[in-house]
Amino acid sequence: MPRGVLIDLSGVIYDGTCALPGAVESLQALQASGLPWLCITNTTRQRRRDIARDLQALGFAISEAHILSAVDATHQWLATRQRRPSLLVHPAVVAEFLDLDRRDPDTVVLGDAADGFSYRALNRAFRLLLQGAELVTMGDNRYFRDLDQGLSLDIGPFRALLEHASGVSATVVGKPAPTFFTTACERLGLDAKDVLVIGDDAEHDVAAGMAIGLQGCLVRTGKYRPGDEARCPGAQVVADFSAAVAPLLRG
Amino acid sequence: MPRGVLIDLSGVIYDGTCALPGAVESLQALQASGLPWLCITNTTRQRRRDIARDLQALGFAISEAHILSAVDATHQWLATRQRRPSLLVHPAVVAEFLDLDRRDPDTVVLGDAADGFSYRALNRAFRLLLQGAELVTMGDNRYFRDLDQGLSLDIGPFRALLEHASGVSATVVGKPAPTFFTTACERLGLDAKDVLVIGDDAEHDVAAGMAIGLQGCLVRTGKYRPGDEARCPGAQVVADFSAAVAPLLRG
Repeated sequence: MPRGVLIDLSGVIYDGTCALPGAVESLQALQASGLPWLCITNTTRQRRRDIARDLQALGFAISEAHILSAVDATHQWLATRQRRPSLLVHPAVVAEFLDLDRRDPDTVVLGDAADGFSYRALNRAFRLLLQGAELVTMGDNRYFRDLDQGLSLDIGPFRALLEHASGVSATVVGKPAPTFFTTACERLGLDAKDVLVIGDDAEHDVAAGMAIGLQGCLVRTGKYRPGDEARCPGAQVVADFSAAVAPLLRG
Repeated sequence: MPRGVLIDLSGVIYDGTCALPGAVESLQALQASGLPWLCITNTTRQRRRDIARDLQALGFAISEAHILSAVDATHQWLATRQRRPSLLVHPAVVAEFLDLDRRDPDTVVLGDAADGFSYRALNRAFRLLLQGAELVTMGDNRYFRDLDQGLSLDIGPFRALLEHASGVSATVVGKPAPTFFTTACERLGLDAKDVLVIGDDAEHDVAAGMAIGLQGCLVRTGKYRPGDEARCPGAQVVADFSAAVAPLLRG
């Protein structure tokens, strides 16, 4: 039995602008059970405080301290190494990096810049890479389900673009990077083998966590498409977040 | 000895907004020699008539009929197959495709859209590919030397982005596609083995032409960087266009 839980957010407990059915109640029950839990997200269009605020508005009892985001992980990565970033990220998260020296950049930081992915901005990043800058990316997802319910481009394709153009290989700091899951387990104070990761992305949530020893559970909500099971062999596969949590509460 | 010549344009006879030294005179001498020649270009920011006009302004005696461009090759590809394109191309070349039905598109056409490479436009192309559209690209170069003398992103990285996101593989219609070089040789009325291709791109001009039997000549101008020779083994390597043409005039 798992002794702690990592919970992906988008597509698992909410989708677009709505809580998924039963998710608010299941998270309450998990909290009441005393099992430690942490939300993990590659969302790079929001600061952690704004993610928490939006989840609270949907009825979830989630504070900043319950969230590990790729933005925070990236800031930690840069600060530890005293890097000077050039930011190709969403305007909403630029403020998280203002304490770092950004003159004469030695690292291109790639987030989900959305409309910030202009030809001009991509060229600027490309030229820095040619001059020797390192490429660090907050995630590597190929796409996500957008507010209009269509699939939109995530960071991964832009990582592929810059790598192809420059010949520089990126370091991924968010999911599916092993260090991201290791950091999350440290926050819970548990060994990886005692932690269950619940996600809708077979590769970047479930298989990536299982690769460093976590238990995995794939939910059939969010970006799930039939057949995704094959990408995370050995994982539990359940209908939704409530079905993932229920067995943990019986103990 | 070659009996005809294919000439890449940017970086071979001009660079940015200037003719390269000796290039105007060498092209005149080639014309006077009677050897057939054709300019081949993956430039997809201009129509063929505008390319010819700009070259004439630099002093070159080059008409539309002397040019085979990736835009024309792409139009031919679409028209032959009765395809309905969705255009992710530069505004300057949209007019070349107005005779084709663009409703309910079945083919995403990728050119050097420059500032047209917005997040919105890339998402639109991505969603069409997910719905089953085919991806056709006018070229596959990684970068080119821009007017400010810096290197800027070309079509290849955006092809890589869309392929990575969608899982769809692109069909390349411009250089380095074999069909592009075959079409060029047909225009000259010569077998590939009797044609010399002169270019500054070791892979997409020289090696690509040699792969279907042309003779190859790499010039050390334009985007050439020391060491590029290794990417087109067996090719002549010369200082510039004049040095490439001089041996052809001795015969």
